[in-house]
Amino acid sequence: MPRVFRPVDIEQEEKELRKDYFDRHSPHIICSDEVQKGEKFKVKVKVGEEYSHPDDFDHYITYVQLWNRETFIAQAVFSPGSLGNKPNHVEVDFYIVAPEVSMNLSAMCNCIKHGLWMSDPKTVKVI
Amino acid sequence: MPRVFRPVDIEQEEKELRKDYFDRHSPHIICSDEVQKGEKFKVKVKVGEEYSHPDDFDHYITYVQLWNRETFIAQAVFSPGSLGNKPNHVEVDFYIVAPEVSMNLSAMCNCIKHGLWMSDPKTVKVI
Amino acid sequence: MPRVFRPVDIEQEEKELRKDYFDRHSPHIICSDEVQKGEKFKVKVKVGEEYSHPDDFDHYITYVQLWNRETFIAQAVFSPGSLGNKPNHVEVDFYIVAPEVSMNLSAMCNCIKHGLWMSDPKTVKVI
Amino acid sequence: MPRVFRPVDIEQEEKELRKDYFDRHSPHIICSDEVQKGEKFKVKVKVGEEYSHPDDFDHYITYVQLWNRETFIAQAVFSPGSLGNKPNHVEVDFYIVAPEVSMNLSAMCNCIKHGLWMSDPKTVKVI
Repeated sequence: MPRVFRPVDIEQEEKELRKDYFDRHSPHIICSDEVQKGEKFKVKVKVGEEYSHPDDFDHYITYVQLWNRETFIAQAVFSPGSLGNKPNHVEVDFYIVAPEVSMNLSAMCNCIKHGLWMSDPKTVKVI
Repeated sequence: MPRVFRPVDIEQEEKELRKDYFDRHSPHIICSDEVQKGEKFKVKVKVGEEYSHPDDFDHYITYVQLWNRETFIAQAVFSPGSLGNKPNHVEVDFYIVAPEVSMNLSAMCNCIKHGLWMSDPKTVKVI
Repeated sequence: MPRVFRPVDIEQEEKELRKDYFDRHSPHIICSDEVQKGEKFKVKVKVGEEYSHPDDFDHYITYVQLWNRETFIAQAVFSPGSLGNKPNHVEVDFYIVAPEVSMNLSAMCNCIKHGLWMSDPKTVKVI
Repeated sequence: MPRVFRPVDIEQEEKELRKDYFDRHSPHIICSDEVQKGEKFKVKVKVGEEYSHPDDFDHYITYVQLWNRETFIAQAVFSPGSLGNKPNHVEVDFYIVAPEVSMNLSAMCNCIKHGLWMSDPKTVKVI
C-alpha cells in the first residue's frame, strides 16, 4: 500500500518550508455540520488552505476522492493545466443525499510527485 | 466508437415519455458567459433539467466529463447510492482558470444502462 | 462534444509525418474473433501499431476506454512516466465474460495534447 | 481516511466464511521478480485467489489501482456486469517500463460494499 500522508499539527513544525509542504497537499472537506435526512447537500473538497499547489505537468493534483467511512462516494480526475499552470487550490463540489445515519466524510488526493494525502475526517450529523 | 446521444429538439417529439428519456440523460453546462483571463471560475455540470435520473445500482450516471474543445479537463466518477437511490440530478462543480482564448466547453455523461450523452456546447468568452 | 478522431486510410495520406501522427494515436483492440458464451477472455487495447507515442508529462495517453456497443465496460487511467518517459505503446489487458449475444467492441483513448481517438470496431462472435 | 483492509494470515482465522471474505477481496500482484532497466513488462493485478468475488450491480469491484511505493501508476475502473454478473476474479494487466531502481509495487481495490483493500507488497528487482 502506498504510504498515506496526513495533515499534522503544523504549528509544531519548526520550518516554514515544511508547513507549506504539508498545507498545500492536504485536502479539506467543507460542508454543513448538520443536514436533514434525504436532503441533497454540497460537499466541497479543496486542496490547501494558506498555500496553493502547483499546476505543472510534472507536479499537479491528479485526483481527489470522497469517502463516507469505508464507502467510496466519488472521484474527480484532473488534467494538468486546467488551473492555468499556476499555483492554485484544486476544488471540486460533489452533491450527495444525506442517508439515514450520520456521516463521517473523508477526502484523499494524489499529487503526481508527492503521493497520497488524506483530510481530517468531517462528521456530518443527520437530523 | 460508442454511439453518442445528444439532446434533440424535444419539443418536436410526440411522446412525453421520450421527452423524459432525453431530458433526464442530458448533461448541461452552467457557468458564466464571460470570464476574465486568468480568473478561476466555477463550471457546474448537471444532468437533466425537468426530469431527474434514477440512482439505482443497475441504472445510474456512472461518470461526467468536462472538455474544452478537444482538450479533456476533468472527469468525476460516481458510486450508485450517493443520491440516496432515488431519482435526482447528478451535479458536480469543477473550478478552472480561464486561458488566453475563449472556450468552447462541452460535457459528456454515461448512464450505465443507456450509454453516452453529450451536452450542448457552451461558449465562454475570455475578456 | 469533443471532436473524435479516427484512423483513416492512411495509405492515402501524402505525408509520412501525418501517417505517424494518425498511427501513434489510434487505439486497437486485439482479442479472439470468437468466444464461447460465458467464457472469460482477454481484450488487449494497444495504442499505435508501427509508431509509438511519447510518454512525456505534457504529452502522453491519459486514459483508455473499452466499450461494447453503447455499453461502457472499463477505463484505465495512466500516470505519465510509467513507460519511462520514452515513446512506447500504451497497452492494457481487460478480462471480460462473453455475454449471450455477439459483441461489437470499440476502444477510445485520450492524448493530453491531441484529444480523443477511437479504434476500428471489433466484432466478437459468441458461440 | 477510509479504513484499509489487508490480507491477514487467514490460516489463523477460525471460520471458513471469514477466510472466504478476506480472500475474495484481496488484490494480488503477479509479475516477474526481476526485470531489466528500461524493459517493458506486464503487471497483472488479480482479485482473490481461491475464492471469487460477486459481479452484481450492488456488489462488485469498482476499481483497481497500481502503485510503486508512493507513486500512482494506473487505475482501472470497471462496470458491473462485465464478468457476466457471476462470481469471478477481476483481472487487469498493466504494462510498465522498469525504472533505474528496484520497485516496490502494491495494488488496491475497492468493493462497492466492503470498501478498500490492499495487496501484499511485491518487490521487483531491477538489474
